[in-house]
Amino acid sequence: MNRKEFRDLASPAAAREAIDSLSIEGGVERVPLEEARGRVLVARLDAELDVPGFDRASLDGYALTARDTFGADEADPAELNVVGTVHAGEKPGVVLESGQAAEISTGAVMPAGADAMVPVERTDVGDEVDGGTDESGENGDKGTVLVRTSVAPGDNVMFAGADVAAGERALGPGTRITPRDIGLLSALGIDEVPVRRKPRVGIVSTGDELVRPGGELESARGEIYDVNSYTIAAGVEDAGGEAILYPHAGDEQDEMERILREAAAECDLVLSSGSTSASAVDVIYRVIEEQGELLLHGVSVKPGKPMLVGRLDSSAYVGLPGYPVSAMMVFRTFVAPAIREAAGLPEPESATVTGRMARDERYGEGRLRLMPVGLVTDGDGNSNSDSNGGGADSGVDAGVGVSAGDTLVYPVDKGSGATTSLAEADGVVEVGPETDYLERGESVDVQLFSPDVRPPTLLGVGEDDPTLNRVLDRLDNPRYLSVGSRPGLRRLREGIPDVAVVAGPRGREHELELEATELGSWERDWGLIVRAGNPDEIDDLDDLVDRDLQFVNRTSDSGLRTSIERALADLAAERGDDQHDLATQIDGFDVGLRAHESPARRVIAGDADAALGLRDTAERLSLEYVSLGAQTVRVLANPDRVEKASVRELESVLAEDVVSDVGLSL
Amino acid sequence: MNRKEFRDLASPAAAREAIDSLSIEGGVERVPLEEARGRVLVARLDAELDVPGFDRASLDGYALTARDTFGADEADPAELNVVGTVHAGEKPGVVLESGQAAEISTGAVMPAGADAMVPVERTDVGDEVDGGTDESGENGDKGTVLVRTSVAPGDNVMFAGADVAAGERALGPGTRITPRDIGLLSALGIDEVPVRRKPRVGIVSTGDELVRPGGELESARGEIYDVNSYTIAAGVEDAGGEAILYPHAGDEQDEMERILREAAAECDLVLSSGSTSASAVDVIYRVIEEQGELLLHGVSVKPGKPMLVGRLDSSAYVGLPGYPVSAMMVFRTFVAPAIREAAGLPEPESATVTGRMARDERYGEGRLRLMPVGLVTDGDGNSNSDSNGGGADSGVDAGVGVSAGDTLVYPVDKGSGATTSLAEADGVVEVGPETDYLERGESVDVQLFSPDVRPPTLLGVGEDDPTLNRVLDRLDNPRYLSVGSRPGLRRLREGIPDVAVVAGPRGREHELELEATELGSWERDWGLIVRAGNPDEIDDLDDLVDRDLQFVNRTSDSGLRTSIERALADLAAERGDDQHDLATQIDGFDVGLRAHESPARRVIAGDADAALGLRDTAERLSLEYVSLGAQTVRVLANPDRVEKASVRELESVLAEDVVSDVGLSL
Repeated sequence: MNRKEFRDLASPAAAREAIDSLSIEGGVERVPLEEARGRVLVARLDAELDVPGFDRASLDGYALTARDTFGADEADPAELNVVGTVHAGEKPGVVLESGQAAEISTGAVMPAGADAMVPVERTDVGDEVDGGTDESGENGDKGTVLVRTSVAPGDNVMFAGADVAAGERALGPGTRITPRDIGLLSALGIDEVPVRRKPRVGIVSTGDELVRPGGELESARGEIYDVNSYTIAAGVEDAGGEAILYPHAGDEQDEMERILREAAAECDLVLSSGSTSASAVDVIYRVIEEQGELLLHGVSVKPGKPMLVGRLDSSAYVGLPGYPVSAMMVFRTFVAPAIREAAGLPEPESATVTGRMARDERYGEGRLRLMPVGLVTDGDGNSNSDSNGGGADSGVDAGVGVSAGDTLVYPVDKGSGATTSLAEADGVVEVGPETDYLERGESVDVQLFSPDVRPPTLLGVGEDDPTLNRVLDRLDNPRYLSVGSRPGLRRLREGIPDVAVVAGPRGREHELELEATELGSWERDWGLIVRAGNPDEIDDLDDLVDRDLQFVNRTSDSGLRTSIERALADLAAERGDDQHDLATQIDGFDVGLRAHESPARRVIAGDADAALGLRDTAERLSLEYVSLGAQTVRVLANPDRVEKASVRELESVLAEDVVSDVGLSL
Repeated sequence: MNRKEFRDLASPAAAREAIDSLSIEGGVERVPLEEARGRVLVARLDAELDVPGFDRASLDGYALTARDTFGADEADPAELNVVGTVHAGEKPGVVLESGQAAEISTGAVMPAGADAMVPVERTDVGDEVDGGTDESGENGDKGTVLVRTSVAPGDNVMFAGADVAAGERALGPGTRITPRDIGLLSALGIDEVPVRRKPRVGIVSTGDELVRPGGELESARGEIYDVNSYTIAAGVEDAGGEAILYPHAGDEQDEMERILREAAAECDLVLSSGSTSASAVDVIYRVIEEQGELLLHGVSVKPGKPMLVGRLDSSAYVGLPGYPVSAMMVFRTFVAPAIREAAGLPEPESATVTGRMARDERYGEGRLRLMPVGLVTDGDGNSNSDSNGGGADSGVDAGVGVSAGDTLVYPVDKGSGATTSLAEADGVVEVGPETDYLERGESVDVQLFSPDVRPPTLLGVGEDDPTLNRVLDRLDNPRYLSVGSRPGLRRLREGIPDVAVVAGPRGREHELELEATELGSWERDWGLIVRAGNPDEIDDLDDLVDRDLQFVNRTSDSGLRTSIERALADLAAERGDDQHDLATQIDGFDVGLRAHESPARRVIAGDADAALGLRDTAERLSLEYVSLGAQTVRVLANPDRVEKASVRELESVLAEDVVSDVGLSL
């Protein structure tokens, strides 16, 4: 096979075609009725019996011959001899003749000779038999019944086969079995059904650096947790397949080949992902070329360029990109539809939301772009709200929990190596290769990840804070992006989030803060986190400046960083020194970490003697804490969103909770 | 407890309230990550580590100090000494100093001293080391690299915690875990999550007449298959609960009490259904009054009046009506929402379709009516199609596979004892107690049974026929109601179905047939089905008239019945007899069965000597067949629907298939 064929990237349509040309159907299996829900029938099922299987009394009353009641009414009831009783679940012991009736229960078999029944409410007891005789005596004499109405043949009787008749087509091939279908199958006595076997999808992840979740991670060696295996497995199951995880292959060639071939032998489709190393790709190439066929290499789509499609032994094969976000996007766009089709499931009518771009988005690589996006409702969350942006239409096409208000769409992107950003996205915008630029306010269609995606009710951004986390837990489906105080304010200015959370002294962005409405605030204690027992006897900022101690700072986006810089300025003023000189005297002052717990974790790891942090963090991680001051955390609302229900809910939770809760958080 | 309280039926709102007052939450359980999809998190999960856990190279290239590249460009590259190599998954063995670089792979750990990287594409190899020295020698001298661009600190590096930072709020309580969330959890190394335990719902069905599907049914004793158990179990699972089926209790009181209490001890909610016998209800009353509390008995809703709500020991209890259709409607309306809530699942945004009534529907019992309905698209299936009926709006509110064309809504009702009619319904119309009458053409809102219900593409009615069944198998999602030829024509005249299938000689409805478009037709052979080997030597219709033979006929709705009556008329003319007299001489001529296989099955059961039927049926059931003639089966289209896609598809399947297939079917 000539690898040159694949130098040019295939179009997305060609990729779809290549995947469609693979056969990944799983064949047929028989499942018991209790496992049939949601499965897809492979063959028509005809009724093999009548339902009901006998002429059945619809009510409690008397079985009789309709002719005997002709002309009867309230004034002139017909009197019939009661010759027996039939209960549900028993064979009638009587055969009726003219002038006779039998007591009968709902659901019981109509006795021979009877062609109708009268409900007990339309009858009276007639002559009782003599007290002395046996009521269930040989002659069956149970007295008489007075029938106060006339009935026609068939009245109050459900005839055999009236519900389903033997030979009738019950369920057609391709039926996805619902609880209602299970009712029909039960009625027909069917306890096992032939369904499509779920396609077996083997997942092989490669890469020496990958560790399965739950395992011990050695970050210094660059190990990371394997994200793709469980994520793709969940996607496979969502699409109606059966996911089989294979052990990590690492980058060792023989091992990788052995596992790939084992998966191909056991599965209908093998998906590989993980290693981006050239040697891994080489092995996969070689194995596929020797044992199968490579149909396609490289697709003109972003993310997802390095997709492979082919056959491996008797199995279909798709190679997914290694980066988790890319892998999931390619899986969702190209692979999931093929699995659904093989499983016999209909393509889900994907819920689509129309919104407008929250900001300009430039993109000019000439490939189809699958852009993960988040959604936030602008204005007060009601329709017809005033909007800041373009005049594009906005609305929701499906009943998917998105208010039909003015929906803003913002790209979710943490860079190509990001593993987790899809958890912060609600759907995908497909941007065609001819589109270089999406303008703020421009209308776009968002395909939600699934019809039951509920975009968050509240979008917050800014400082990470333990008290805030507890507040968020009280809200219904909020989304919070911990980007730091300064970027939070910046995004609030752009008009995207509902609220920004900022900490520390007011800075240059003060003006913006004044425009925003403060929903609530609390104080938090900040300082230095040091080893348990404070073995270095660190007491204040002077120690960091004057002694040979390794410090870990936060990034300049953080409100804590602003506070420690302010404190350093005060110290410089006090000492008559230059602030910049003091900063350079602190070993590590310029090494800023993004996360509020990360500096403290460096202390635990023995990589630092002191870390900037919160009292709360020190306590949580059982470290010692040296207080340097307190700072205010403020929750600021986007001026356009103060009437939005979720913002008001946040305000009320802050009002009732933070006051009482803040003591606990400090 | 005073049972009188419950004499008045409770309102549906009161019933909902009573169920809401029961506690059916299942508590907390920990599940492994691979089983977490779709489960509901009970607690916030915070990141316990940074993702990535180290500063990570985003590309293949060279790690270096940004400052060393300042001013470099294509014309004037910076030359750096390459002092080592770092692969993904290994600990860097070098510390960079000014003027040095290290080869680095995508995903590898940035070595100490490096603050940026340059992709390999922007570099050239500089001076090679002398060929003679060991490339990986002690001094790490690997020659130089020419860097043709300048980079800023942080370029092409993903810093530790840039994706998720330690201490960050990862997922909030109440999150329903998606594959994307599984990606986030994987990245954090979390392999087990605390989720709400699914509420355990015990299902107890009572009634001596019930037999589990798969068991042997004795129809003569009035036994029927237990429909409710598996159907309700599937509904419980659809709603996010775990269904536990208990063995049949029968009507024996001690046994019923024992099973109810066993279920109550093991489950969060016990549902009973099945027996309508007074004694069963008495036992349930007694057990609940002794061991729990009865909150409500009887609800003003149809179907569903006899609902019970209460507590049994420590479990919640709901008694469902015995009839399967009633049980499912009550379950869906009152119980499923409570299970979903206990499971932590959001109330599904139920897809709603607006359509217009296909016929008048009268109802005046003053109770809320839950009316199961089917849907059919009128006209040619496109929007703006001309409609026959009222001018009501029609449209679809959700992306649920229903064309937004003109939707007709027809009630599905086979009588109160029907077990299977929900399999022929698409959703429910709630008719308020104040509404006595729904007019043909009136606009109604239909709640689909689930958002993924796909109403059938084609609605056919009429004669049951084996060839037709095979034709239907070729279509995508058809619905066919085997009502017989005459009722089929009647319904076609009312304008509801897309097609009607009629068999036998043209009758009084001939005029209507002329109006309808014939899409296709085939011949079928009909006659008498007799015991294998034809021991009674039955040769023709004369035998039935002249000999003492038990015959089984079809109902007068059937095309076969029309043909045998025509044959009898011919025989009468031939003999110079009266047709009616001949009919009375045939024992069983007036006993008409609805299903095309049912008469033959009476022959098998030994209850008849000859049955009206098709050659196909005789062959299928290994019986002997006496041909009496052939009749035409015609597929007639509703004149308004001839352009509908599914009707055209049927026409083309008929054209290509029936001609070739009919030989096989005869």
